[in-house]
Amino acid sequence: MDLDLIRRLSQPAATKVVLCVLDGLGGLPGPRGRTELEEANTRNLDRLAEAGSLGRTIPVGEGIAPGSGPGHMALFGYDPLVFDIGRGALEGTGIGFKLGPDDIAARGNLCTLGPGGLITDRRAGRLATERTAEVCARLRAITLPGVETFVEPVQDQRFLLVLRSAGLSDQLCETDPQHEGMAPIVASATAPAGERTAVLVRQWVTAAEAMLAHDTPANGVLLRGWSGRPTIPPFPELWKLRAAAITAYPMYRGVAELCGMTPLLGAHDFAEEVALLREHWDAYDFFFVHYKYADSAGEDGDFRRKQQAIAAFDDLLPGILDLKPNVLVVTGDHSTPATMASHSWHHVPLLMWGDHVRPDAANQFSEAFCRAGELGTILAKEIMPIAMAHAGRLARYGA
Amino acid sequence: MDLDLIRRLSQPAATKVVLCVLDGLGGLPGPRGRTELEEANTRNLDRLAEAGSLGRTIPVGEGIAPGSGPGHMALFGYDPLVFDIGRGALEGTGIGFKLGPDDIAARGNLCTLGPGGLITDRRAGRLATERTAEVCARLRAITLPGVETFVEPVQDQRFLLVLRSAGLSDQLCETDPQHEGMAPIVASATAPAGERTAVLVRQWVTAAEAMLAHDTPANGVLLRGWSGRPTIPPFPELWKLRAAAITAYPMYRGVAELCGMTPLLGAHDFAEEVALLREHWDAYDFFFVHYKYADSAGEDGDFRRKQQAIAAFDDLLPGILDLKPNVLVVTGDHSTPATMASHSWHHVPLLMWGDHVRPDAANQFSEAFCRAGELGTILAKEIMPIAMAHAGRLARYGA
Repeated sequence: MDLDLIRRLSQPAATKVVLCVLDGLGGLPGPRGRTELEEANTRNLDRLAEAGSLGRTIPVGEGIAPGSGPGHMALFGYDPLVFDIGRGALEGTGIGFKLGPDDIAARGNLCTLGPGGLITDRRAGRLATERTAEVCARLRAITLPGVETFVEPVQDQRFLLVLRSAGLSDQLCETDPQHEGMAPIVASATAPAGERTAVLVRQWVTAAEAMLAHDTPANGVLLRGWSGRPTIPPFPELWKLRAAAITAYPMYRGVAELCGMTPLLGAHDFAEEVALLREHWDAYDFFFVHYKYADSAGEDGDFRRKQQAIAAFDDLLPGILDLKPNVLVVTGDHSTPATMASHSWHHVPLLMWGDHVRPDAANQFSEAFCRAGELGTILAKEIMPIAMAHAGRLARYGA
Repeated sequence: MDLDLIRRLSQPAATKVVLCVLDGLGGLPGPRGRTELEEANTRNLDRLAEAGSLGRTIPVGEGIAPGSGPGHMALFGYDPLVFDIGRGALEGTGIGFKLGPDDIAARGNLCTLGPGGLITDRRAGRLATERTAEVCARLRAITLPGVETFVEPVQDQRFLLVLRSAGLSDQLCETDPQHEGMAPIVASATAPAGERTAVLVRQWVTAAEAMLAHDTPANGVLLRGWSGRPTIPPFPELWKLRAAAITAYPMYRGVAELCGMTPLLGAHDFAEEVALLREHWDAYDFFFVHYKYADSAGEDGDFRRKQQAIAAFDDLLPGILDLKPNVLVVTGDHSTPATMASHSWHHVPLLMWGDHVRPDAANQFSEAFCRAGELGTILAKEIMPIAMAHAGRLARYGA
């Protein structure tokens, strides 16, 4: 549904909607021929599946494995091909750095450069966050003519670089070749508008490498995901509701904030996320609750740990159900099959539960039942209109 | 997926993809209540169906029976509503006639005109190709002011007419009324740009009818599918791979060539096509392999022969599997139910096999199992992105 239509049809109501995102939920069959979700002990989800409607989502498009940014944008109802948030902007918002209109941000990695300047470790041995913070403090001393610079530690070896000056552009290449054994790429413009920014970035990188030359293991920098502040119509205005985001990980909070949701801070694991949800239940109408651990295990190629992570979510689900949301959605932002150890393009299981759902024949939340589910296979951006309809928050179209 | 996104996400890989097109694959139930595919003995396809994912395609749009051109364009990942190749252009490329930028081509039929100039046989008794060649040689003597003309035999009574002159247009009507008992239509422009071309075509047709007036059975000409040279972004550049087309029939080779695939020549039947595939296996990454005989039988309304043609394909399938492609797609460009003896709009069975497919409950390649398949019912143009994702040739979208 396009955003103009949403603006036109959305209406307030006294209902509560919870969107639970199990990151990387979808999977592929493991050693026993069943997926992580199918193997997991999920008695609470199975009961919801029996009462609710199942389906599957296409996060971005057929065949496209989405990153976390587009995956979540789609879940929030935005077309991820239209609202394309760069990694830099995402990383910035994740650590509470509000990008201004003159800012260009990149996600940085401290890396290890070997003889001849070739990358020997793209992550500098996953340098500890505190040590990355020390390096960032030093890198802040680098000055560029007419430009304000910010260098902020994120997590492990990751940092945020922001250049602030009128007329900067994100139209330059990434310096991270994404492979070890290669030299960092020299920043160059991908369009005339990026020329000045590319010159500045080359100066900054040269200065950074000179400053870190004798350090071990972090003696280099890699920059990617150049992006300015994206312009996204605010979610609370689009849908006429108060929206909160509960997530233990900065990046997902970042996307939610870019969409205008209010982050509820303080949770370090899912039990604490559920506690936050309870605490703030009255103050919001819509809650995005993010569960990271299915994806982490999938990315590590650990089938059993992903299965256990899904089961652990299920164990905590009653804490959400006790709050009696009017509509509960459980899905993922993409699939992360443990057998592939990466995000994939496979359709993602979807469960919708509420007063007016049309139940299907499912008695388990599984890829197989989702395939035959009531909701069919839909673009992930269609979840929001359906959930809002169930919540009485979407008016009739036409007389 | 739009082509810009494909360009952005496609990436090289050391994988091989085979797209087997069983022309006119989809069917309708015959005397025993099962379709041609369901009746056929297809033990190899059934084994693939068990290990792979099934689904169905919509070639162009719901309710639309596609011609071979749009059917194949969609299979190659192009939106057939955007990249609309005229029959003339197709016919030309099929016989190795490369249309130039000032060319307008039509597919011609020699026909039989009876008393009063009414068509008594649209195909002049399916005139033999050699006799059509003799007629074409005579028709080349017709001259038009300021225009170079080409008249080339194709197959049976079919020929290609090309007019070459700056400023010609394909905006004129066809002269073939597509029914017998009617007179040929007088060429007229469908837009002002086509006026001059229509005048020229009327002159040519009048001269041709005068020249053939005393011939039997071919004493008339019918022209359709006016088209200039289409502009199609080359498939190998879009997908960053080396692409080959193996087909015993000229028209399919023509579409593939228009898309920039390299035709591998010399096969006169499917066994020879498989031999060509083996011979050129190392030199290409993507192979389009066309199997005509399901469609021919369907067009003839011969249920049993279509069933046998599908079984004959199945018998030769191990020759392809032996090459160990990373991804194998088996589908059709459209349905040709024998009970209808024509192309139809029905969804087309789709089978995708590769390392990371999510299997469904199918143990047979059939319309019924395809309906409940993992891939769902998708636009045919989505096959390519999914196959490329399976082949590791499509990068993640976004961070």
